[in-house]
Amino acid sequence: MRAALYQGAGVVVVDDVPDASIAEPTDAVVQVLRSCICGSDLWSYRGIVNRAAGGRQGHEFLGVVTDVGAEVTSVRPGDLVIAPFTWSDNTCPACVEGLQSKCDNGGTFGAPGADGGQGEAVRVPQADGTLVAVPGGVDGVDDARLTALLALTDVMATGLHGAVLAGVTEGSTVAVIGDGAVGLCAVLGAKQVLGAERVILMSRHADRTALGRTFGATDVVAERGAEGIAAVRELTGGRGVPFVVEAVGTPESWEMALGMARAGGHVGAVGIPHQMPELPLFPIVRSHLTVGAGIAPVRRYLPDLIDRVTSGRLDPSPVFDLTLPLERVAEGYAAMDERRSIKTMLAG
Amino acid sequence: MRAALYQGAGVVVVDDVPDASIAEPTDAVVQVLRSCICGSDLWSYRGIVNRAAGGRQGHEFLGVVTDVGAEVTSVRPGDLVIAPFTWSDNTCPACVEGLQSKCDNGGTFGAPGADGGQGEAVRVPQADGTLVAVPGGVDGVDDARLTALLALTDVMATGLHGAVLAGVTEGSTVAVIGDGAVGLCAVLGAKQVLGAERVILMSRHADRTALGRTFGATDVVAERGAEGIAAVRELTGGRGVPFVVEAVGTPESWEMALGMARAGGHVGAVGIPHQMPELPLFPIVRSHLTVGAGIAPVRRYLPDLIDRVTSGRLDPSPVFDLTLPLERVAEGYAAMDERRSIKTMLAG
Repeated sequence: MRAALYQGAGVVVVDDVPDASIAEPTDAVVQVLRSCICGSDLWSYRGIVNRAAGGRQGHEFLGVVTDVGAEVTSVRPGDLVIAPFTWSDNTCPACVEGLQSKCDNGGTFGAPGADGGQGEAVRVPQADGTLVAVPGGVDGVDDARLTALLALTDVMATGLHGAVLAGVTEGSTVAVIGDGAVGLCAVLGAKQVLGAERVILMSRHADRTALGRTFGATDVVAERGAEGIAAVRELTGGRGVPFVVEAVGTPESWEMALGMARAGGHVGAVGIPHQMPELPLFPIVRSHLTVGAGIAPVRRYLPDLIDRVTSGRLDPSPVFDLTLPLERVAEGYAAMDERRSIKTMLAG
Repeated sequence: MRAALYQGAGVVVVDDVPDASIAEPTDAVVQVLRSCICGSDLWSYRGIVNRAAGGRQGHEFLGVVTDVGAEVTSVRPGDLVIAPFTWSDNTCPACVEGLQSKCDNGGTFGAPGADGGQGEAVRVPQADGTLVAVPGGVDGVDDARLTALLALTDVMATGLHGAVLAGVTEGSTVAVIGDGAVGLCAVLGAKQVLGAERVILMSRHADRTALGRTFGATDVVAERGAEGIAAVRELTGGRGVPFVVEAVGTPESWEMALGMARAGGHVGAVGIPHQMPELPLFPIVRSHLTVGAGIAPVRRYLPDLIDRVTSGRLDPSPVFDLTLPLERVAEGYAAMDERRSIKTMLAG
């Protein structure tokens, strides 16, 4: 089969690899219908993170089950399934508490030794705990909804998780820092899933701002740093926002997050950079803030999000603004690296 | 009247000062019955924090109202009252949300221009919002309960606030980092106010450990650093604790707090050092932690805590292990500086 391989900074190629196959009785094999490129895939592409040549690429995909191991009971060949970007048994203590991205038997697609999403097929470990079947299967969803479902594998669930970590409540005011795919999905999650009334998006790119408004942003602030904080405070009667989603992860974005939160406010952080910053304790103490952070446990949100997408209540598909066939994956990396694409989908 | 004055590093004297008197119609004057020395009073005493000579000392006191301004309605002369270490109007948006230590019209006793608790009397700004009268007055409480009530002005409420920030629930397991008066009161708060079942106190001082056990600590861990984390993990089946109260505030104690919290755990921080550290984001993300911090809004807890003390259900009085008359305050500073006293009370 064909799959994308990392061959060094700036070099992602598609090459022949052994066919995905069952290795453990808890595995399934999924034929990939759609996959995509993540901002974190760019870390090694940009040479910021060291990675051995020859590894598989990608952790976001959906497709059709073609084979299952002897112990798999929840999905069967022919099912349209969605995989979170991490696999999990969904039965360990962490999973039971809804932290499937911290599973005792978990792992990440595209990590050393694992298949990647950017390929024709994927071996899925812990299939029963990981995969969620889409009711109605392939015949039940049209092209646009299939794209929307692909967004659930990471960015939509991650954006929502940021809003959940922040504790966003119905009718509340939320600020979202970051206008990448995750930040935009945080707008969607805060507004359409959690019912926030007012969503302030920090964004200075016209195309992303426009998409943010489509997703439910009621205000857009282009300023950054102290000016950005001042602008958000002005929008909130001087007090700041009760809920902030931090979807960037740099010291500068954290400074904004901690500075624009009002007294007693909450920051939910899903901006996970390759190198994590230190957080100053002072503004947290000064403003009585609560800060929560973590890699999104996508699996926890999938059943509800699938239902929202298939019933037409949620559509994150516009985060994909470039579609390429797998064989042209290199063009996708270049487009995202050069910020010509918010998020690139691979289909066909 | 007599009051303690800061005259330089290592030098706190008692001298004559103008009598406390009403300056604003919202003021009250309280004749101090008991006051005490706080760990934070040692910052300037040790020369770690610069402070102008001549300033009043102390922010913890209780006493009897001797005079009230024209607009004061909730307390009257003769009332036995407790003051939080910060005054507050109790009506601004922050106060209404229970963050009285962030009051728009608030301040701290002993700060420049304000009276300090370590004196014969105190002018209390925002008396209606600040002071809480003890039902039954002076005649209704015996000597031991008066001491217990004094602890509510800061350490008891601050320790409890740490446990509240951590989100401690009934029947849960909590670790408390710090065996000073605040840490010990966090044990008491977690166990006796919030109903935690298991409280692990990090302590290596025999006298403090013994007091911690009296207050409800079920386990004591003397190790620090990685060994302390390992010991707590061993006590919790390898997973770590769901709730941690951080009552020290150094980089080392934070490393322990973030390291011993289990996946999805919560850290409540009331350890406020003179110089606040930076927190590494990595362990927070890795373990899906939530971190909350802030200066305790003592006023919010006072009515409930007063009721618990006067009804005999709560007794933090043992944190005071040395009592001196005001005129000998310098001995108290020396005793706390040299760690011969956990907390020194001034009476008489």
